[in-house]
Amino acid sequence: MNDASANPAPAGLPFARVGIIGLGLIGSSMARALRKSGSAKAIVAIDRDAAVRERVAALGLADSITGDAAAGVTGCDLVILCVPVLAYGALAEIIGPRLAPGAIVSDVGSVKGSVVRDVGPHLPEGVHFVPAHPVAGTEHSGPDAGFAELFANRWSILTPPAGTDPAAIERVHALWSALGSNVEIMTPEHHDLVLAITSHVPHLIAYNIVGTAADMETVTESEVIKFSAGGFRDFTRIAASDPTMWRDVFLTNKDAVLEMLGRFNEDLAALQRMIRWGDGEGLHALFTRTRAIRRGIIASGQETAAPDFGRHAGLAAPKDPAG
Amino acid sequence: MNDASANPAPAGLPFARVGIIGLGLIGSSMARALRKSGSAKAIVAIDRDAAVRERVAALGLADSITGDAAAGVTGCDLVILCVPVLAYGALAEIIGPRLAPGAIVSDVGSVKGSVVRDVGPHLPEGVHFVPAHPVAGTEHSGPDAGFAELFANRWSILTPPAGTDPAAIERVHALWSALGSNVEIMTPEHHDLVLAITSHVPHLIAYNIVGTAADMETVTESEVIKFSAGGFRDFTRIAASDPTMWRDVFLTNKDAVLEMLGRFNEDLAALQRMIRWGDGEGLHALFTRTRAIRRGIIASGQETAAPDFGRHAGLAAPKDPAG
Repeated sequence: MNDASANPAPAGLPFARVGIIGLGLIGSSMARALRKSGSAKAIVAIDRDAAVRERVAALGLADSITGDAAAGVTGCDLVILCVPVLAYGALAEIIGPRLAPGAIVSDVGSVKGSVVRDVGPHLPEGVHFVPAHPVAGTEHSGPDAGFAELFANRWSILTPPAGTDPAAIERVHALWSALGSNVEIMTPEHHDLVLAITSHVPHLIAYNIVGTAADMETVTESEVIKFSAGGFRDFTRIAASDPTMWRDVFLTNKDAVLEMLGRFNEDLAALQRMIRWGDGEGLHALFTRTRAIRRGIIASGQETAAPDFGRHAGLAAPKDPAG
Repeated sequence: MNDASANPAPAGLPFARVGIIGLGLIGSSMARALRKSGSAKAIVAIDRDAAVRERVAALGLADSITGDAAAGVTGCDLVILCVPVLAYGALAEIIGPRLAPGAIVSDVGSVKGSVVRDVGPHLPEGVHFVPAHPVAGTEHSGPDAGFAELFANRWSILTPPAGTDPAAIERVHALWSALGSNVEIMTPEHHDLVLAITSHVPHLIAYNIVGTAADMETVTESEVIKFSAGGFRDFTRIAASDPTMWRDVFLTNKDAVLEMLGRFNEDLAALQRMIRWGDGEGLHALFTRTRAIRRGIIASGQETAAPDFGRHAGLAAPKDPAG
C-alpha cells in the first residue's frame, strides 16, 4: 500500500505500524509525510468523526481507518496524538491498556507541560512517551488542508520527560528528520515559555484586534475589510486559526501566556505613553531596533521557505526612504 | 520619453507635468505606475537625497531629477508629496510660492487630518489640495523597492477639505483609477479613525511584541528566530516597516490611535481574564467570531491579490479539525 521501500531508511526507521489519532491539518500532513518519506510500513488513521474518516479514505492517506481508538492503536509501535490537547487525558486512558511494551507514544501539541501531566500517568510500564511539537502550520484545518511538505525546514521540538529511554527519543528524532524538520530537545517548561512568546501571545493579540475591529461603531465592517491591506489583513489570517485548538492552548499554557502578556502590556503602556507625550525619538528607536530580529528570521530561512505563506524570496535589508 | 500615447487617456488625464517629491517605496511606485498608465506626459523626480537621485536616474524613473523642490515643482500641474508626513509643512512652505493657479497638490500620507492642517495654509489662492492615501505598501523602503502594480486592486482614499474644486477632485480620482485602484472619498477625520484600527494600531502592536520578544532574558533571540513560524514571523514583517514614516504616523494621528488602543487594551484585559479564570467557552466564542472578518477580506479580493505578500489564491473557508 505504500512505497516505504523506495529509499534506504535511516536508523530506527521505518516504524512498522503508526497510529495517527486525529486527521486534521497536522495529522493528515503527518500521514502524507510518513508515507512519502517511507517512515512507516503501515499507517492507521484514527478519527472519531465519520466525515473526516470518509475524506481520509477518499484521499488515500492510510492503510486502515477506524473510529475506535483502542482498536486502532493495537499493534502499533508508534502512536501520535494529533487532537486538541485538552482531549489527551481521556484518550490516553482509553489507549493506554492496548499499548504493547516498547511502543512509543508521541504527539504534535502546541503546549507540552500539561501534555506530560495528562498523558504520562495513563501509559503502562515499558511504553515510551516522547512528546513533540512541530512548529509549523497554516490557518486552515481538516484533512484536505494537509500536505507532506508542511514540516520541511521547520523546527520540531521534543520534550521527553526525565528518564525517557534514549533509544525511543532517537527514533522520534529520526522520524522528524526524515520529514525534513530540524529537531531541538528541551524541557516541557522551557518549551511552553518559548512558544508563549513566539506563538501563543501573537495569536492572542491577533484574535483580540480582529475582535476589537469587529466591535467598532464608528467604522463599518466593510471599511475594515476594504482597507485591511494597511496591516490588519495579516492579523486576520492568524486569527482564522482553529478555535478549539487555540482555546486549549490558552487554557493549558495559562501561566506562561499570562507572564508574557504581562510583559507585552508593560511595553505597550510605555509605547502608548511615548505617543501621548510626543516622544518621537523613543518611537523611532524602537521601530529601528525591531528590524534586527526580522533580518535574523530571514537569514535563518524561517521566512522564505514557508510553503503556505508564499513570501517572496531574496528579501533585501530595507533601506531608509528619502525625501 | 514616455509612452503616454499608448492608450486613450481617461477624462482629466494625462497630467502635463507631475512632480513627485520623495522617491521611496510609494513615490517610486507612483513614478513607475504613472508612466506605465500614461497618466503623465512628463515626470519630475524631486529628492533631497543624492543617493536616491542616483538610483532614480539609473532606474530611469523620471524625465528630470532634482534635489531642489522649489525649482522642481515649477511648471507642474500636479505635485505629489511622498515624504514622511511631519516633513509636509516645511515642504509646503517652500513649494507654495512656485505653484501656478490651477495646479493640484496631492500626497500619499497615511494620516490626513494633520496633513490638511499643515499643508493647506501654505498653498496660494487657485491651487487645489486633494490629499490622498493609497492603502498599499510593503515592508520595504527606497526607490528600488517600488513597482508599478503596487496600487492595483487596492483602495485609495481621497480626503479633500470642504470647498475643494470638484474638477480637481475628479482628476485625482481619475489618476488613481488609472493606476488600478478603487477610490473612496471621506473626511480626513473619518480616514484617521478607520486607518487607526486597520493599520496604525496593528503596526504599533507588531512593533511592540517584537520589542518584547527581543527583551526576554529566559528565551534567547536564536530561539525566537527558530520558532517564529508559530505566528511571530508575521509580526516581524510588519515591524520591519520604515521607522521614520511610522514615527510620524503615531505623532500625527495621536488621538485616534490612543482611542483605538484604549479599546484594544480593554478587550485584551477581558481576554486575559478569560484565560486566568479558564473560561474556555468565552475564548472559543471569540476565536470563532473573528473568522467572519477573514472571510470578508478574502471575498473582497484584499487578500489574494496582494502582489508582494504572495498569498495562495482560492483559500477555502476553514473547517473544524476532527479528533
